[in-house]
Amino acid sequence: MIERKSVNLVSRPNGPPTLENFELVTSSLDEIKDGEILLETKYLSLDPYMRGRMNADKSYAPPVPVGGIMEGECVAEIIDSKNPNFENGEIVAARIGWVTHAISDGIELRKVNQQLAPISTALGVLGMPGHTAWTGLNVIGKAQPGETVVISAATGAVGSLAGQLAKAKGMRVVGVAGGAEKCAFAKSELGYDECFDHKLAADATELRKWLSDAVPKGIDVYFENVGGKTTEAVLPLMNEFGRVSVCGMIAWYSGIGVNDAIRLPAAWRAILTKRLQVRGFIVWDHNDVFDQFFSDTAPLVQSNQITYRETITDGIENAPQAFLDLLDGKNFGKQLVKVS
Amino acid sequence: MIERKSVNLVSRPNGPPTLENFELVTSSLDEIKDGEILLETKYLSLDPYMRGRMNADKSYAPPVPVGGIMEGECVAEIIDSKNPNFENGEIVAARIGWVTHAISDGIELRKVNQQLAPISTALGVLGMPGHTAWTGLNVIGKAQPGETVVISAATGAVGSLAGQLAKAKGMRVVGVAGGAEKCAFAKSELGYDECFDHKLAADATELRKWLSDAVPKGIDVYFENVGGKTTEAVLPLMNEFGRVSVCGMIAWYSGIGVNDAIRLPAAWRAILTKRLQVRGFIVWDHNDVFDQFFSDTAPLVQSNQITYRETITDGIENAPQAFLDLLDGKNFGKQLVKVS
Repeated sequence: MIERKSVNLVSRPNGPPTLENFELVTSSLDEIKDGEILLETKYLSLDPYMRGRMNADKSYAPPVPVGGIMEGECVAEIIDSKNPNFENGEIVAARIGWVTHAISDGIELRKVNQQLAPISTALGVLGMPGHTAWTGLNVIGKAQPGETVVISAATGAVGSLAGQLAKAKGMRVVGVAGGAEKCAFAKSELGYDECFDHKLAADATELRKWLSDAVPKGIDVYFENVGGKTTEAVLPLMNEFGRVSVCGMIAWYSGIGVNDAIRLPAAWRAILTKRLQVRGFIVWDHNDVFDQFFSDTAPLVQSNQITYRETITDGIENAPQAFLDLLDGKNFGKQLVKVS
Repeated sequence: MIERKSVNLVSRPNGPPTLENFELVTSSLDEIKDGEILLETKYLSLDPYMRGRMNADKSYAPPVPVGGIMEGECVAEIIDSKNPNFENGEIVAARIGWVTHAISDGIELRKVNQQLAPISTALGVLGMPGHTAWTGLNVIGKAQPGETVVISAATGAVGSLAGQLAKAKGMRVVGVAGGAEKCAFAKSELGYDECFDHKLAADATELRKWLSDAVPKGIDVYFENVGGKTTEAVLPLMNEFGRVSVCGMIAWYSGIGVNDAIRLPAAWRAILTKRLQVRGFIVWDHNDVFDQFFSDTAPLVQSNQITYRETITDGIENAPQAFLDLLDGKNFGKQLVKVS
């Protein structure tokens, strides 16, 4: 019998989540049956999309039920197997939630090559966030060499790879991030041509002025991760036939500012007169390009041509606080929880 | 020597245009030279896009200069020709502006088949507005049989054809229009399944409630002609992978309401979670499909399967007032000026 810890959703937030919305629960797992494997979590990935799962209304996926285990992806070690396809000691990426252990039938697991790179990268630059960056840039954004891209949340798990892939493609790459340290990192380590701290901008107009000076040829692709004043600043600077990859809007996830007088008409006018293509996407709709993303990106990671940064919190009991910090932008790069 | 009347822009509007922004000017045209033809305008087309040309800032096309002739398309008769490709008595569609006469070198004229349908249709259902409707529905909206489309400005020159083409495709078609008479016409003559009067809706929430009841399977395509509360009402009702064809936003053309607290976040959230594709388009970018539009639509017009309505104002001197009425939605269907 295995004692399993999990973090469960015990109430829904009304606005920004708090620690009271979560509870650490201990339960026991049955013995595995034929065809099953027992997983021990090494790292849990924390991602902004999880905020949406805490609400009662369906977004693009059903909500986590009250009392249920928080959703999420982990890298885990196989510590017992009655499935001929998996051996003890193998590492897999698996959507098992915020848990220390799980039983799986082996379906929808992705084996992680431990020789390629640290296994935590399977949740970051070589996992879902990386896949998201690659898809948003190439499939949705149709980014081309010589073009200019603006990336919000420029140093986040998604943005930091999007920026480096764009640079490797030969684009002008301008970031928006929260804080001087992140902006400095974007330029010195990730290769951004410019990066602006949205916290220093009084409003969208000021941020637009800074961006405008940094994009002498306008903006062809906007990789949207945040919403808020950054969106309002960027849209009027888009070039004709520009593309907006709408990947996230962390600024609005908790309801703050969603009723602000943000000028939809100005955005809509830009869409019409510039003939923009604005397209929302969720990476799980694009599994068909995962292999292409991986074969493009893994060699760059292996040869250290891609920089990635992780914020690692110790212990599953600290996952809720780490998640609140992520929503506040206090993390730097990919937010992980080291579970065992 | 021909005496030519024109309507010129003499000042730029600040907000809604007024009659004082226009002036009727009489001038004389030179004799035509070899290769040229002399055109006498029969009908002038008035279209919402002209409002944008009155502003100083470049939209997708340069502004009309102060003192210059208002831009626009006419159907005109050839009354003199020194060009072997054109004969007296032929009718052409030509972008010659708000004028009674013009000299042309014959380039970029479209000959109008006088046997096919009344020549005024070359400015409406078989001209630019028709081409716009067909392109917005098929190319941008990727409309499919069995899907549901919502069309704003449902009885306008563009919307009325979009609605009928959608119906002919086997779609559920719901309109939004301004006034009971237009809504009744949309249902009884154009075949809309439902049509709602946005003037009766207190706000976007009320309009959304009405629409919601009329689209039991959600909205797959939104043909956007207006902006304003209709946009705010529609976006949250879109289905996953829905398409928004952004064709116009007459509600905002004169600056009224462009700073309203319209909730961009709600729109943006719909774009992300529903993975919408929102795409602005200008019909002049899609000349490659004109022939396809025309060969699809002309037989339907010829066999009276397509209904179209025209508001015809007499005399070029009355074009400014007719244009102001168009911006106020006082016209019904295609707005034309009978010039000679």
